[in-house]
Amino acid sequence: MPVNLQAPDPKALHPVPGVRIGTAMAGVRKAHRKDVCVFVLDEGAAVAGVFTRNRFCAAPVQVAREHLAAARGIRALVINTGNANAGTGEEGLAHARATCAALAGHLGVEPTQVLPFSTGVIMEPLPVDRIVAGLPVALAGLKADGWADAAQAIMTTDTVPKAVSTQVSIGAQTVTITGIAKGAGMIRPNMATMLGFIATDANIDPSLLPALVRQAADQSFNRITVDGDTSTNDAFVLMATRRARHAAITALESPEGLALQEALIGVAQQLAQAIVRDGEGATKFITVRVEGGATADECRKVAYAIAHSPLVKTAFYASDPNLGRILAAVGYAGIEDLDQTKIDLYLDDVHVAQRGGRHPQYKEEDGQRVMKRSDITVRVLLGRGSAEATVWTCDLSHDYVSINADYRS
Amino acid sequence: MPVNLQAPDPKALHPVPGVRIGTAMAGVRKAHRKDVCVFVLDEGAAVAGVFTRNRFCAAPVQVAREHLAAARGIRALVINTGNANAGTGEEGLAHARATCAALAGHLGVEPTQVLPFSTGVIMEPLPVDRIVAGLPVALAGLKADGWADAAQAIMTTDTVPKAVSTQVSIGAQTVTITGIAKGAGMIRPNMATMLGFIATDANIDPSLLPALVRQAADQSFNRITVDGDTSTNDAFVLMATRRARHAAITALESPEGLALQEALIGVAQQLAQAIVRDGEGATKFITVRVEGGATADECRKVAYAIAHSPLVKTAFYASDPNLGRILAAVGYAGIEDLDQTKIDLYLDDVHVAQRGGRHPQYKEEDGQRVMKRSDITVRVLLGRGSAEATVWTCDLSHDYVSINADYRS
Repeated sequence: MPVNLQAPDPKALHPVPGVRIGTAMAGVRKAHRKDVCVFVLDEGAAVAGVFTRNRFCAAPVQVAREHLAAARGIRALVINTGNANAGTGEEGLAHARATCAALAGHLGVEPTQVLPFSTGVIMEPLPVDRIVAGLPVALAGLKADGWADAAQAIMTTDTVPKAVSTQVSIGAQTVTITGIAKGAGMIRPNMATMLGFIATDANIDPSLLPALVRQAADQSFNRITVDGDTSTNDAFVLMATRRARHAAITALESPEGLALQEALIGVAQQLAQAIVRDGEGATKFITVRVEGGATADECRKVAYAIAHSPLVKTAFYASDPNLGRILAAVGYAGIEDLDQTKIDLYLDDVHVAQRGGRHPQYKEEDGQRVMKRSDITVRVLLGRGSAEATVWTCDLSHDYVSINADYRS
Repeated sequence: MPVNLQAPDPKALHPVPGVRIGTAMAGVRKAHRKDVCVFVLDEGAAVAGVFTRNRFCAAPVQVAREHLAAARGIRALVINTGNANAGTGEEGLAHARATCAALAGHLGVEPTQVLPFSTGVIMEPLPVDRIVAGLPVALAGLKADGWADAAQAIMTTDTVPKAVSTQVSIGAQTVTITGIAKGAGMIRPNMATMLGFIATDANIDPSLLPALVRQAADQSFNRITVDGDTSTNDAFVLMATRRARHAAITALESPEGLALQEALIGVAQQLAQAIVRDGEGATKFITVRVEGGATADECRKVAYAIAHSPLVKTAFYASDPNLGRILAAVGYAGIEDLDQTKIDLYLDDVHVAQRGGRHPQYKEEDGQRVMKRSDITVRVLLGRGSAEATVWTCDLSHDYVSINADYRS
């Protein structure tokens, strides 16, 4: 059961002018489920993406990077679930290229104008024929309000589709930002997420897009972890159709640029948090906030050490305020000159540890009260400086083990 | 249930001349169980240790380091289970010192000649009065053949006591090496293990002991992981009573020094592997061997990435040859210039992946056959050089979650 997360209301997902979406049931891994999704972009759209840092990156990630670098103007995205096309060698690259070529043929564009994405089981051959056979069906159903369908078509072990939409006013024009994401396990994005796609009609200079997407990733998908496993297929793509009629944004730090950034980061954060709320087996949503560090990097290290600790995660699952486990994780996070006598720990509003030891007023029942909540904030003060970092994660439950022990069956 | 591991036969544990051991039921956390253990060493023994690198190291670790540095000649060790005396601030340090002082008083030695060790729950005050009250009982029962009792008295979530003993001939004299260890969770030793104590009567120059204990740790306890959580209390101590009548060993690289090293590493490896075989919830014992690296360090990184991956560990638990998860872990292990097209993967004798893709002859049933075994070797060839590293770990099961969700109750 996802933690305080509901499926999006399709009516709340604003279409983005210049973007049409179609889906198909191609039988990639299972019959009778939407598993192929196509985005088609009007000419003139700008596209940028960030991808997994996993050195075993999947074939579609390699091809998508190539096609973005070719800079011919991206006109379509094709996404399949059920098979990651990773650990598939040369054949996998050929399959990803064949998928792009087939879609390009239907649309009358170049294969390098198509970006491929895959998610699912690793090291099994991509059933490229079935995916290609599904493309005409997806194209026949192209529509502007296909976002809810798309969110469903890219799910793997997700239990709810994830989509977020917002509108902001830029230069007195309404600008839309709508996005979808998927992911529940193998989640420890490193410069990207499992799969996230956000589109906007904002009229933004295409040269600004790579910085914008990276910034949004750093504030959202790069701050979450479910199990610490960085996927082979992580990708987060931003599409700007530039159809809104405001004056073009030519600097990210302009008032219009900042308005767009803020709205985009809001959408990306909601999607990223939705992935954690729907984390495999999750029963709790945990915000880990580390303050008082010498650098943001060391704060992130501490936050991830806490967020990855199986002992911390199982304690949350049990609602057991066994909070010394958090201090232990702080201690092994890799800050060589950490002084334990300067560490304070809070659980929501409860002051648990002071200067490295149990707070004299701390009572177990106060910790217990917070641990029973479904949304909890862990706050660690390092006493070393003024840097800070936040990471979102979930607990580790019996269901995580069940889901991953049974995933392929 | 531990994986292919039985409780030691007490008769097979050779006493070490110059070492006497006593235990007591002090009621540290639970009644009616041995939870305090005292080692008493004859005058002239040399002692060295390696300790956790966790910056949140426990009070007894800090005090043990101080007392070793004082170099007054260690005469006793006092170990309690049930409470780690970690995250306990100044009061915790006072408690550790009080324990040493009490034992030193009974023995007529200086407090700095006693080393304290604690293991158990973090961030709860040490019940120092109960421990001190247990010391006379432990001392009244001092005996040379107390190793099996000691192994039992230091257990926490361990399901079987862990003790190993061997004898070697050095300079035509029989030399004994006997040791115990404990640990099942919070196991990712960093320069030490949870708790390991090995004694020998070998006549070795005391100045060689620090290097010897570090070398043994690097070949044993520093190669295991259960859950990646580095404990606050890790300690591995080597005691040499120097009572054997061979000529003193004055160089580790001499034939006698090498014989001692080999036997010691053998005992330490067996104890370290016993910790993994008894890992919390373990159903499989996994050897991860990474070969063909440019450096041993990068091999270790890859081995630990595999050994820590919850997805790899749950696949082993399920006996599911979902082996792409191993490739994904190789990919995110942190080798920036890794070339995935050079990676080969074996599972025992089965060649699973070749040059980064599925091996053409690999059949799922072959992977399945190996995955059902209880002792499995994962072998990764990086194709970058001739360095290698081995790490031992276990799978991640429902029972791991149950044990750690219930540990304090």
